[in-house]
Amino acid sequence: MAGLLRLMSISISPDGSSFRIPSPEDMKNFFPEISRRSREYGIMNRRTVAVQGLGFVGSAVAAVIAGATDQNGDPLYFVVGIDLPDENSYWKVATVAMGEVPVGSPDPELPRLVREAALETGNLMATAYEEAYTLADVIIMDVPLNVNDRFEYRSGSIGINLESLRSAARTIGRMMKPDALVIVETTVPPGICEQVILQDLLLERKRRGIEDSPLLAHAYERVMPGKEYVSSIRSFRRTYSGIDDRSADAACEFLSSFINVEDYPLTRLKSTTSSELAKLLENSYRAMNIAFMHEWTLAAEELGIDLFSVVDSIRVRKGTHDNMRYPGFGVGGYCLTKDSLLAQWALGALFDCDIELGMTLNALAVNNSMPLHTFDLVMELLGGSVAGRSIAILGITYLQGVADIRNTPAEILADALLELDAEVLAHDPCMKTWPGRDNVRFTAELRESLEYADCIVFAVPHEEYLALSPDEILGANNLTNGAQFEPGQVITLPATDNEERGELWLK
Amino acid sequence: MAGLLRLMSISISPDGSSFRIPSPEDMKNFFPEISRRSREYGIMNRRTVAVQGLGFVGSAVAAVIAGATDQNGDPLYFVVGIDLPDENSYWKVATVAMGEVPVGSPDPELPRLVREAALETGNLMATAYEEAYTLADVIIMDVPLNVNDRFEYRSGSIGINLESLRSAARTIGRMMKPDALVIVETTVPPGICEQVILQDLLLERKRRGIEDSPLLAHAYERVMPGKEYVSSIRSFRRTYSGIDDRSADAACEFLSSFINVEDYPLTRLKSTTSSELAKLLENSYRAMNIAFMHEWTLAAEELGIDLFSVVDSIRVRKGTHDNMRYPGFGVGGYCLTKDSLLAQWALGALFDCDIELGMTLNALAVNNSMPLHTFDLVMELLGGSVAGRSIAILGITYLQGVADIRNTPAEILADALLELDAEVLAHDPCMKTWPGRDNVRFTAELRESLEYADCIVFAVPHEEYLALSPDEILGANNLTNGAQFEPGQVITLPATDNEERGELWLK
Repeated sequence: MAGLLRLMSISISPDGSSFRIPSPEDMKNFFPEISRRSREYGIMNRRTVAVQGLGFVGSAVAAVIAGATDQNGDPLYFVVGIDLPDENSYWKVATVAMGEVPVGSPDPELPRLVREAALETGNLMATAYEEAYTLADVIIMDVPLNVNDRFEYRSGSIGINLESLRSAARTIGRMMKPDALVIVETTVPPGICEQVILQDLLLERKRRGIEDSPLLAHAYERVMPGKEYVSSIRSFRRTYSGIDDRSADAACEFLSSFINVEDYPLTRLKSTTSSELAKLLENSYRAMNIAFMHEWTLAAEELGIDLFSVVDSIRVRKGTHDNMRYPGFGVGGYCLTKDSLLAQWALGALFDCDIELGMTLNALAVNNSMPLHTFDLVMELLGGSVAGRSIAILGITYLQGVADIRNTPAEILADALLELDAEVLAHDPCMKTWPGRDNVRFTAELRESLEYADCIVFAVPHEEYLALSPDEILGANNLTNGAQFEPGQVITLPATDNEERGELWLK
Repeated sequence: MAGLLRLMSISISPDGSSFRIPSPEDMKNFFPEISRRSREYGIMNRRTVAVQGLGFVGSAVAAVIAGATDQNGDPLYFVVGIDLPDENSYWKVATVAMGEVPVGSPDPELPRLVREAALETGNLMATAYEEAYTLADVIIMDVPLNVNDRFEYRSGSIGINLESLRSAARTIGRMMKPDALVIVETTVPPGICEQVILQDLLLERKRRGIEDSPLLAHAYERVMPGKEYVSSIRSFRRTYSGIDDRSADAACEFLSSFINVEDYPLTRLKSTTSSELAKLLENSYRAMNIAFMHEWTLAAEELGIDLFSVVDSIRVRKGTHDNMRYPGFGVGGYCLTKDSLLAQWALGALFDCDIELGMTLNALAVNNSMPLHTFDLVMELLGGSVAGRSIAILGITYLQGVADIRNTPAEILADALLELDAEVLAHDPCMKTWPGRDNVRFTAELRESLEYADCIVFAVPHEEYLALSPDEILGANNLTNGAQFEPGQVITLPATDNEERGELWLK
């Protein structure tokens, strides 16, 4: 019976396509084809690269590596993308195998790279069969690692379940060629490569009779889903490190083969713990710079000051103040909302010290409170109550132009409004639905939200919204419920960037 | 008797020169000469500029304006520097009158400008006689404004005594030409120009029968005492605003006459409250970015990570992360240590709102705690007690290469060491003494500190210290008390900038 269920289980992609998860037998039957292809490339002195995890990072990294060529235009690598044969993951394998990108990409180069490599050149394949790691000369870990509760900021209470990461590492240890290079791209707490992944690899290798240490490096990604998706991998600075010099040297050689290191030189750090920390510090710095502006936003509103122009006047100080943030709606995405927690967790769990990253954790709390300031403004605009009123949230992704709603701040606003019996409408040009949000009325047409709502929150500066004029917005809404709207009092949308969002307020 | 004391009172400069403070009679007798000079320039269509306050900012601003010329090389303005006829201030007047700069300047252009204008061209004079404001077409306020206690961060407890600022404003109101332009350069809490200075000017003008509003602008300075002292005024971005369009236009015209606005365009903000806030936000941002690194410094020490190289690896991300700070010894100076407090004070005192700039104020507290981490390291190096041990603090200024000890973090370290009965030695190539610190042994020769101390703290990256090699330092110290010193374990001094300091630790 269990076997039958297993045979029948399917994996559904966000756009609704369903894929039957293959049986072990099926995968095994397909494996000789992958193996043959790998051997053919091997004969041409092309190494095989396995990418573990085909999400926002892994699928793009696989595509970029598959797209790397020598001066004759011949591919440098044979690439196998690998993910798990389960409901949550298999659809990504199936999508890549069909020559498509499993994540939305506003950068047309990414679908082109995948299509060409998978369907034309044939140097990109995908499978859920873990035996595929045995073919690889380089294995890149791009599996997710999350905290149990991203709203838990108290240092002693942060929880991380390492099991899926360790399971991924152990699979590699069981399957890897003894001299394969393993590169961890997953964002992990400092100390994980040395204290956890290395130990798991050593243990599994020892069981196979391999006594020497594996080649293990850490090279964190700075992938930005968006218009520069591909170049955020290929033409972007990269930091790496190894558990020893051999590993670091091997990582350097490999990374240099597909990254434009002439214009974007690599940076080598002294230990994997250093580069693990670097990624978390980098994102914590950004999260803190965003959070810092929130209390000044509240102050500026009280003082009647246009903080956008004030910030513009300060940002002219290049090199010291030009990354000052603008007032915003909130912070979402996979990185800025959790990376600081990974660092705090490691201090206690891996290094047994009681240092508190107080400012850093407070910044996460402030960022998560930002959408509630918008909630307060909505309450004020609607005269103190939202019960029975319709509020439209325009933009539910965490980033303009990208179909990604991971940890979106719109969730926090929607929850607060629903709690007080408001009707919540939503629209987003990048999305067809708001998955898991049956209590929100998603309107496929922008006009429907504009016409119907008592209050409109522009939460993401999608291009479609930026193109609207105040007159169009106010014209669409017949203003029967909209006496609060004073045409002309429009705060312009800020220029925004990675994982930060602007808001447009009609007061 | 009071008159006699007054006649005899003197004002002593930091380098020990004493000047007799002139009597009102003396000043009055000298005034016709200033007046005649102003008239002469007036005949040549040159306006007279009065600079109120001849400290680190005012003296340099006066020099730069006096040095401004037309295309024929003729001076654009006649400048009168004005400060008070009291013990604290008069030496600055006397110094400028002699053609010298009242503050130390590592930028040779500043003393040259003052000398030429005061002694050769003759378009820079100085006086303590307030009648001089009657000559001015433009009056620039560069008077100090401080908080009562910079270690008081609780929002309701921040105290600011406005009396000297208001007295300065009232003097201007009593004396100014009706159509003179007043430009406030002093860093003030947001709202001060509109709610305080404007009101004081209006009142004093009304007493004189002048009913119309004065021309009043705010244009905050970004003066950096140091090698770029002059160009931090002349070739630097400047933000300004006016209490009305006429005032803003007048300020724009005046500022454009001596600032290189072609390469460094002016930025106009919508209200004086906006530009007042901008200055405080700008410095608060910097203070917060410094403070943020402190907890990561503690974490990195615990993890055995070289945070300097980690920060270097992150700073390659231009435009978003390249202003990330390095670990440091502490923060001093006149601005970063108090500007955030001015903002918090204004929210309560001038705008009657209860918004707390929590992250911002916390950053000041963290920055003031930084030297105590150095104290902890010294304690650790010396085996848990500093009683009877000699600790040398190398560098007591708050900034490399500048003879300025205002709010220097070295104070906090010295106090903590003295409290536990340590002997504190100090050295600084920019200073001849540590004024007001009789309980510290200031050594004129670096070698003396190096030879004698049990522990050496490099607190400021003065060039003289950067030129030392670890061998020289350890060779000079015979190490009888220095078993803790392990040669080679030297953390290199970070590249530092405005109001931030590096530390060099011998472990």
